[in-house]
Amino acid sequence: MDEQTAQKRLRAVRRQIRSRNLDAMILTGPENVSYLTGFMGHDSWVVIIGRRTLLVTDSRYTEQARSECVGCKIVERKGPITRAVADILIRTKSVRVVGVEKTCSLQIFGELKKHIKVRFKPTGQLVESVRRTKDAGEVRAISAAAAKAWQALDRTLPRLRAGMTESEAAGLLDFEMRKLGTVPGFDTIMAFGANCSRNHHQPGARKLRSTDTILIDFGAKVGGYCSDTTRCFVFGRPTRFYEKVYYGVQAAQQAAISEIRPGARLREIDSAARNALAERGLPDYGHGTGHGIGLQVHETPFLSKIAKGTLQPGDVITVEPGVYIPGKLGVRIEDDILVTETGHKVLSARMGGNTLTVINFRK
Amino acid sequence: MDEQTAQKRLRAVRRQIRSRNLDAMILTGPENVSYLTGFMGHDSWVVIIGRRTLLVTDSRYTEQARSECVGCKIVERKGPITRAVADILIRTKSVRVVGVEKTCSLQIFGELKKHIKVRFKPTGQLVESVRRTKDAGEVRAISAAAAKAWQALDRTLPRLRAGMTESEAAGLLDFEMRKLGTVPGFDTIMAFGANCSRNHHQPGARKLRSTDTILIDFGAKVGGYCSDTTRCFVFGRPTRFYEKVYYGVQAAQQAAISEIRPGARLREIDSAARNALAERGLPDYGHGTGHGIGLQVHETPFLSKIAKGTLQPGDVITVEPGVYIPGKLGVRIEDDILVTETGHKVLSARMGGNTLTVINFRK
Repeated sequence: MDEQTAQKRLRAVRRQIRSRNLDAMILTGPENVSYLTGFMGHDSWVVIIGRRTLLVTDSRYTEQARSECVGCKIVERKGPITRAVADILIRTKSVRVVGVEKTCSLQIFGELKKHIKVRFKPTGQLVESVRRTKDAGEVRAISAAAAKAWQALDRTLPRLRAGMTESEAAGLLDFEMRKLGTVPGFDTIMAFGANCSRNHHQPGARKLRSTDTILIDFGAKVGGYCSDTTRCFVFGRPTRFYEKVYYGVQAAQQAAISEIRPGARLREIDSAARNALAERGLPDYGHGTGHGIGLQVHETPFLSKIAKGTLQPGDVITVEPGVYIPGKLGVRIEDDILVTETGHKVLSARMGGNTLTVINFRK
Repeated sequence: MDEQTAQKRLRAVRRQIRSRNLDAMILTGPENVSYLTGFMGHDSWVVIIGRRTLLVTDSRYTEQARSECVGCKIVERKGPITRAVADILIRTKSVRVVGVEKTCSLQIFGELKKHIKVRFKPTGQLVESVRRTKDAGEVRAISAAAAKAWQALDRTLPRLRAGMTESEAAGLLDFEMRKLGTVPGFDTIMAFGANCSRNHHQPGARKLRSTDTILIDFGAKVGGYCSDTTRCFVFGRPTRFYEKVYYGVQAAQQAAISEIRPGARLREIDSAARNALAERGLPDYGHGTGHGIGLQVHETPFLSKIAKGTLQPGDVITVEPGVYIPGKLGVRIEDDILVTETGHKVLSARMGGNTLTVINFRK
């Protein structure tokens, strides 16, 4: 991260801190810490007091912090992290109200309260509300992650063989990502046949058959930013019904994507996809239609039946309707979409588009 | 998990609930949920009220829950999980004091308090204190995980080549684990050369050289149980100093392991390793000497300078001293040890032992 980006982010976060009437803020979420400081390690927190920004870390990460951090002071703690943070606050006399992220645990909150008598205020979406709007560099990172992911997939598909387990096929895709200099952005979902209907399936011992269906939900990570895409494939010949489902899901995804523009209601994008399925006599799905992506694979905003609010320029969201028939089949198609000033741009567009790919094994 | 194991665990957890004077307990930690019900999915909680045990999940996981769960009722929620759990508690008239795990977030705690007026009590180590003592099946799973991990390593080492990045080498090892029907238990640490001194290094673009040092910290997972081991290797010839460090760390690990028996103080095992390094004029390390392993890769008990308490039969802990010289080298050796009724047993013993392995590249 360059100095200018770091300063811009810090200014936006400080505005949030002031508008919530906090004297200081403790950031415990690793992605929020990365966003503000460039630090990509773990177990380290940021404390913001007035114009001071401190990264509180320990000896395991000091080397890494020195090489990665921009615009903050590095504090190497010896004792527990809550003690170190309390000591920093104690040394700053004027601090009365301190924000703590709502994602923080009761354990940590309890320890902080024990160490220092200030008013701690659970605070939600402080950095997240800033992180929601992606700048050009962040959009480039997500696009690059998606491109790497497709490249890895293109190297993986021809190597799939009947008899290979879901877990092995997932491992092959992950390895191809690493060979391309990226890493999996989250646990790859690789499901065969009826397992495709389990929409958060963990790849297991199920073996690929010479006629089979596959669902792959995966992403890469570039500079900390995730892509998140899903594609389905058929080995051998698809059944009529599978084709009907596949093209129904594709139409649902297109219906939702075509609604994406600044000001569009989150709930309406969600219902656009569901209505398209209903029109084709296909069943509704039990998950949301999409979610923001960035440093986290799931972040604000969320597209669902109960979502409030509208899209803003700079949002990057997934659109991922699906049809799941337990014991039979599952189809989901997922892409990553940027909300532009006037409409949208698909960041995860793939050569050859989304037509159902039929793959034949080489023997 | 068999019915008998599930019942035994539930009885032990119910005893904990009664001894803490709780009318009900909400379990939000995924490993605690797995431990009690056998369910291996995510985003699902367990509610225990008297003799009733409920798994609250959503449609993404209902299929999986039906096939995995033992000894509990499956509740498929439609709305937010906190709402669903509150509704269950509301329907049970006699509930006054409800335990919530301390690992749960302020966000969730706040939502629960909004939905229902009972006394919520942040509760720590309730299931963890039961999980700490491993039964024969759990010990077998950890041993099996370690055996798979070594097998994967043995297939990986001969395939390492000069020019391969840390990330690619880590991916190769992960892939070998998957080919063996297991999965990485945590993010594999693969560090080359001076990167070995970063003791939570994330594998990156650093390329392996024809004379180089390597540190690999990795584990496999069998039936949800992790192994966690670290080994170091030299490509080409080790320097005298590297050898001194390596055998010093090995002696430190042996010194700590030889102290492991029921009743041994956690702090003394920690200091046994540190003293052995100091005797050899080697620097101390900034992390703990070890930690419990099981469903989580870090769980109670922890071996450190400030640890309180003693070892008990059934504890499974890592012992992992290290020497780190920033910019120069890093060596850590880690194994997984069971505390038996009379002493200890190394679960991660490796054929050929721990002598420094020198590897020569095949061209």
